[in-house]
Amino acid sequence: MSRKKTDNGRLIFLPLGGAGEIGMNCYVFGYGPAGRERLIVVDLGVTFPDMEGTPGVDLIMPDIAWLEENVDRIEAIFITHAHEDHIGGLAHLWPRLGKKVYCRRFTANIARRKMEEHGRDVSVIRELESFPAMVDLGPLRVGFMPVPHSIPEASGLVIDTPAGRVVHTGDFKLDPTPIIGDPYDPNLWEAVAAPGVQALICDSTNVFTPHSGRSEATVGPEITRLVSEAKNMVVATTFASNIARLQTLADAGRAAGRSVVLLGRAMRRMIEAGVESGVVTNFPPVISAEEARDMPREKVMLIVTGSQGERRAASAQLSRGKYQGLSLREGDLFLFSSKTIPGNEIGVGRIINAFSEMGVDVVDDSSSLYHVSGHANRPDLQKVHQLINPKMLVPMHGEHRHLREHARLGEAAGIPSAICTNGTMLDLAGKAPRVVDHVETGRTYLDGARMIGALDGVVRDRIRMALNGIIVVGILIDEDDEIAGDAWAEIKGLPDSGRNGAVLVDEIEDAVNSALERASDKIVSDDEAIEGVVRKVARQVAQDEIGKKPEVVVLVSRLVAA
Amino acid sequence: MSRKKTDNGRLIFLPLGGAGEIGMNCYVFGYGPAGRERLIVVDLGVTFPDMEGTPGVDLIMPDIAWLEENVDRIEAIFITHAHEDHIGGLAHLWPRLGKKVYCRRFTANIARRKMEEHGRDVSVIRELESFPAMVDLGPLRVGFMPVPHSIPEASGLVIDTPAGRVVHTGDFKLDPTPIIGDPYDPNLWEAVAAPGVQALICDSTNVFTPHSGRSEATVGPEITRLVSEAKNMVVATTFASNIARLQTLADAGRAAGRSVVLLGRAMRRMIEAGVESGVVTNFPPVISAEEARDMPREKVMLIVTGSQGERRAASAQLSRGKYQGLSLREGDLFLFSSKTIPGNEIGVGRIINAFSEMGVDVVDDSSSLYHVSGHANRPDLQKVHQLINPKMLVPMHGEHRHLREHARLGEAAGIPSAICTNGTMLDLAGKAPRVVDHVETGRTYLDGARMIGALDGVVRDRIRMALNGIIVVGILIDEDDEIAGDAWAEIKGLPDSGRNGAVLVDEIEDAVNSALERASDKIVSDDEAIEGVVRKVARQVAQDEIGKKPEVVVLVSRLVAA
Repeated sequence: MSRKKTDNGRLIFLPLGGAGEIGMNCYVFGYGPAGRERLIVVDLGVTFPDMEGTPGVDLIMPDIAWLEENVDRIEAIFITHAHEDHIGGLAHLWPRLGKKVYCRRFTANIARRKMEEHGRDVSVIRELESFPAMVDLGPLRVGFMPVPHSIPEASGLVIDTPAGRVVHTGDFKLDPTPIIGDPYDPNLWEAVAAPGVQALICDSTNVFTPHSGRSEATVGPEITRLVSEAKNMVVATTFASNIARLQTLADAGRAAGRSVVLLGRAMRRMIEAGVESGVVTNFPPVISAEEARDMPREKVMLIVTGSQGERRAASAQLSRGKYQGLSLREGDLFLFSSKTIPGNEIGVGRIINAFSEMGVDVVDDSSSLYHVSGHANRPDLQKVHQLINPKMLVPMHGEHRHLREHARLGEAAGIPSAICTNGTMLDLAGKAPRVVDHVETGRTYLDGARMIGALDGVVRDRIRMALNGIIVVGILIDEDDEIAGDAWAEIKGLPDSGRNGAVLVDEIEDAVNSALERASDKIVSDDEAIEGVVRKVARQVAQDEIGKKPEVVVLVSRLVAA
Repeated sequence: MSRKKTDNGRLIFLPLGGAGEIGMNCYVFGYGPAGRERLIVVDLGVTFPDMEGTPGVDLIMPDIAWLEENVDRIEAIFITHAHEDHIGGLAHLWPRLGKKVYCRRFTANIARRKMEEHGRDVSVIRELESFPAMVDLGPLRVGFMPVPHSIPEASGLVIDTPAGRVVHTGDFKLDPTPIIGDPYDPNLWEAVAAPGVQALICDSTNVFTPHSGRSEATVGPEITRLVSEAKNMVVATTFASNIARLQTLADAGRAAGRSVVLLGRAMRRMIEAGVESGVVTNFPPVISAEEARDMPREKVMLIVTGSQGERRAASAQLSRGKYQGLSLREGDLFLFSSKTIPGNEIGVGRIINAFSEMGVDVVDDSSSLYHVSGHANRPDLQKVHQLINPKMLVPMHGEHRHLREHARLGEAAGIPSAICTNGTMLDLAGKAPRVVDHVETGRTYLDGARMIGALDGVVRDRIRMALNGIIVVGILIDEDDEIAGDAWAEIKGLPDSGRNGAVLVDEIEDAVNSALERASDKIVSDDEAIEGVVRKVARQVAQDEIGKKPEVVVLVSRLVAA
């Protein structure tokens, strides 16, 4: 099944995102002579900004400079599934690559929506049936291998090369009953493994979870019981893309004689895509928020967006009051059918406490009854290592600690394994993974309408202003290079008054004026020198008065002789 | 045991911090005629800022304006234990209250250190023996009730009033073997409960933890085993104030034939305070970092600060390289003998991944073997409800969801219970808690050397600058109220160029100049009107060019006729 080996080509693997972090997945595979390998790109994902490190940023994407430099070598792009950390960068980054984009049907539907929203050509999105269907791309032959995950039609990739077969698992779990989409099929995995697998590139997210993963089907009975016992309105949240869970929740609502409302644009769009692409076939009828308003509360179940505490999603809006005319009351039940992603605890906690103040009963995932993970746990990973029996293992989709633990697991099973982080290029053609290059990688930020580099200093300046506040000082210099009039200052993000009640801007202006009076002609004739003096004086005053060292912007204005 | 009731006085409870949040504890108890109750203040704690909501802030404290207004009614301040969320505000807020501060010996030692650091009079710190010793303060008689927690000499309070006895648990657990400090003593609790308890004010932190709490003594054997099996250097972190844990860790190191090093100033100071106050009596000898450098790695154990991922603590510094000449290597073991507090996951994860890159084996709390909580779990709370058998229950030390759940637990046991959040004044003199007032409360920020109000707008401006960046525009107006020369702009926290590569400041200056040319004399003569025009134009340009709406500072300078 492996393609004929025509030369001593390299079989390269290069993660540009997702290896050494969870999020922003982007992997490159290639085969050919060193430096001339023909390439495919697997996933163009995003990760999300936060106030701590990326204030004001809208989205974070992998830096694809290396792909642009080698764009002529790229055969195609593959998207394994429609989670944002795999597909979220597609519409933003595609114009710089301009290649065909292969997806399975549901993912293609989402991809087209995203491309369309950004005014891109949707005809580049190509649907591909799943394995054994494969597409020939230069020396590579690539097929989608259906895997269960927490979104329909998630896929691994089978990549046949002259150096042997590579299996890239994508995000997956081994779920024989995933409610929607392809169940775990041992025959498929055996068929993929049968001709021998050169390298396994494998999801590492849950390598620290010691027990076997639970099936999506196990949450149904629990949720059904919970909803059927509820006395008033029931609201449930989960990831909008977890359509199986939406189905389970909606079915539980219907079973309890409730009308179901989907609140939140993302959720309705996902169901729409599911129906259009044929993965959703028996979703119960839903009613509008408007219809629900007039119904007895105990006859309604809301399924809403915002499981991660996102401020603008339906959950957060309900926690602050009304959303589309609906509001919660004492005795209602709110279910988080979801896990809180690390970093989101504070936002989720804020919502839970707001509901608590309303008297709403909140049920979260602490019991493990109402949510299961979409990723394979440690014993499942070990099972996959056995099933695929690869010559070598490269863990991906994990922080460094996950990759390291997963590589250990492989080594313990006698499989040569490598920790490969973003920017490390491996050759997988030999007996074990071999590092052959290091590529400059990093992060690009979508910031409003612009893409900015992570190291441009823009975000660094924002963080400094947030921590230190800012002083703005204006200086006027006349035609004769003399200071004209007094300096004037403004502050932002700083207290008005300092020690003993002194007005901070007055103190700054006085100190700057004294300094400028003493300044030599040479300094006054040089904008940068003046700025240096003013900055130093202004910061010193702030340090003395308020105990902070703010950022300083100096505007030097020179009058020109008329 | 209750004091003679001399009038129809109120027995008030008023939380100013810590009720509806975890952190920043500050509670007021009082007895007397309405509005003239004599008061005690229990704890003056802090909570910690974050980039999300309080960038640049150093510490967050309760707003004690109500206490200042009623300072003549305050008899004394009590500090239940030396955790920062109970004692951290003392040195900052004390000057505004100026009352005696009662503590047990260890807490008094820490309190004196804090007061001294800020140049305060340490003689106001009064040591008080524990119950049955009590101090008379007007109509109140108050005593410290020793309780196990995760710091030595933690205490509840027994407050006798003419309306009966109040028991305030402070932070506690029911630990019969806490290694250091007072074990759980059922006889003590029974003695306190014997005369009948009017109201129980009770820790709610772990009300959602379904199993009984584990003793501090259970972690010793596990840690000892882990350390004895380690082959190279061992490093462990925990809260500096958890002296029992420090002892357990140090003993485990010694048992494995290792020399122990304490790294981090907070840790050494805590041990010092423990020895001085007599709670630490057999801490093993420690060596200096310098001595450890020359020893075989397998003979050394470091105990370090920074269990919450704090950037400047020893753990974080070791994860970035050297700390005091010591560094970690492949095969070393790093133990988090601590729980990660919600909100700190990212910082802790960063350290774990950095160690993973070094090849250091990190053991965290996921196994529950190497850490136990310092708070009473649900069954322990139920036990305390029975033991104390109060007429009423008021849960404290919890977010709203914890208070609500704890109040439910009380009601289920037949005890009238109230959810009382910061600023709500209860009268506890009757048969059930009764709301009698709402007091203006909030948060005060220590920001550099200044105290600022949470609603002053200072921090709001910082957040806006962090999210939106800033444009500064200078305008010069001559003696005749005419615009003189061109406007000039600077940006900070924004990309230099807009769509099609236009230079952002040039575009802003051009647009501002055009707008000013068109501006009427009336506008030009009015600083605020000019600022309004300039702000609008500058933001519009930014919106068009970079898709963001920045903050704008306009400096208008008017030339005065010589």
